[in-house]
Amino acid sequence: MTPTFMQALRARWQSADTLVCVGLDPEPAKFPARFANDPDAVFAFCRDIADATAEYACAFKPQIAHFAALGAEDALSRLIVHLHAAHPGVPVILDAKRGDIGSTAQRYVAEAFERHGADAVTVNPYLGRDSVQPFLDRADKGVVILCRTSNPGAADLQDLPVAHAGGTRPLYQHVAETIARDWNGHGNVSLVVGATWPEQLREVRAIVGDMPFLVPGIGAQGGDVEAVVANAKTADGAGLMVSSSRAILYASSDDDYADAAAREARVLRDAINRCR
Amino acid sequence: MTPTFMQALRARWQSADTLVCVGLDPEPAKFPARFANDPDAVFAFCRDIADATAEYACAFKPQIAHFAALGAEDALSRLIVHLHAAHPGVPVILDAKRGDIGSTAQRYVAEAFERHGADAVTVNPYLGRDSVQPFLDRADKGVVILCRTSNPGAADLQDLPVAHAGGTRPLYQHVAETIARDWNGHGNVSLVVGATWPEQLREVRAIVGDMPFLVPGIGAQGGDVEAVVANAKTADGAGLMVSSSRAILYASSDDDYADAAAREARVLRDAINRCR
Repeated sequence: MTPTFMQALRARWQSADTLVCVGLDPEPAKFPARFANDPDAVFAFCRDIADATAEYACAFKPQIAHFAALGAEDALSRLIVHLHAAHPGVPVILDAKRGDIGSTAQRYVAEAFERHGADAVTVNPYLGRDSVQPFLDRADKGVVILCRTSNPGAADLQDLPVAHAGGTRPLYQHVAETIARDWNGHGNVSLVVGATWPEQLREVRAIVGDMPFLVPGIGAQGGDVEAVVANAKTADGAGLMVSSSRAILYASSDDDYADAAAREARVLRDAINRCR
Repeated sequence: MTPTFMQALRARWQSADTLVCVGLDPEPAKFPARFANDPDAVFAFCRDIADATAEYACAFKPQIAHFAALGAEDALSRLIVHLHAAHPGVPVILDAKRGDIGSTAQRYVAEAFERHGADAVTVNPYLGRDSVQPFLDRADKGVVILCRTSNPGAADLQDLPVAHAGGTRPLYQHVAETIARDWNGHGNVSLVVGATWPEQLREVRAIVGDMPFLVPGIGAQGGDVEAVVANAKTADGAGLMVSSSRAILYASSDDDYADAAAREARVLRDAINRCR
């Protein structure tokens, strides 16, 4: 039987001993010169990076906006086919942050899982449970829900003080508790919690037990590996998909881009593993 | 000079005397039989509906999930080209509900405005202002931000009691006030406020002055036209894009589908105009 996303992720954490999630955000302006005249550069570059970094990856995470802006949905579908074929133990998370009412959410489910063949997808909780339900119903797939994001503006809504037990708590904590208590009947939910706020990682971890976190914000955005692992790991020293995109993808713009990407991924894996 | 989205919308309200927004959500299983063997059915059906309903439309609103699930982004781009050419006074809102950190939001800006040529796009505020800023910066385009949506689960987050002035107020009211006060420097913002909750329409209207509302939820979802207009119109009897999709698109599955769609759009326009 095909493993579920969650089974595949846990197996990969074990077998490959890595918590690194390799983000695939193609930006042709940053591609090495050799891709300048390649009509299939988006696919080819992402494939090369994935093949070079797979041994250090617990998951791949293509970001759909980078394909959509280029009209490269076909390259995205083919890339995911390649990832499954070449790296069958590494689950693929489509980073799409979708969110819409139920009947439309069904169409986004079809986009992510049927059209593109992803194993998991990121979603936005602002429209409430019924907007996420069509994703949650796919027990075989992963649903990665935004909780506390890594960007400076995250505080605008996510930190608002929501009335709770005679006092208040930040909205993201309410979101975390609601999801852990009511939305995770199939055990297929993960949360996005940014690396830039270690204290918030700790607070969310205390609320949701061993639910996996997708952690963006390491590197370019300033998140610190040691603080992330110390505050967000689960009791077994795992529970994390620490995402890195630009630092790996664009480690070199010369012909050694794949080797440079592999080196960056390995360095991040080792930095994480030293802290576990 | 090309008018901005907001100029085009206000001109259209005036010249066509309609507040109806025609939603374009292609579902091939519901198409009339004549499209069964048409390889370009998605484009052709949406084009026919738009051409038949344009005189009753203040805006068109293609919903991108319905195209993406089918791999029909090319049909969407061609549809918007057609809408602009055939109905130049009717602005096109791409319903995409995008939301991501700033560098990725830029790619979604490119998807909506450069690739697809939309005049406005719907966005999700959960990630905060910096996630919306790349859209806000496009003063020529419309930014339609989710505030209080029409679905049952909207209450899960949007109604949470946020501490305010010694008491609390629902999150959606905080969102409305923040956007009206701080995010609308270019005057290019509209809000999504669902038809299903007339009291909430009234409350948001009181907060944001004459900012336009995109109002989904009439018809299939149970919203009442009279209550919507009474509670949400601006002082000049406009300020609304009352969205209807399925009731217009699938008014008939026979060869009179375009006439039936036009009739539904006219009936809705008239029902709204009787209440203004």
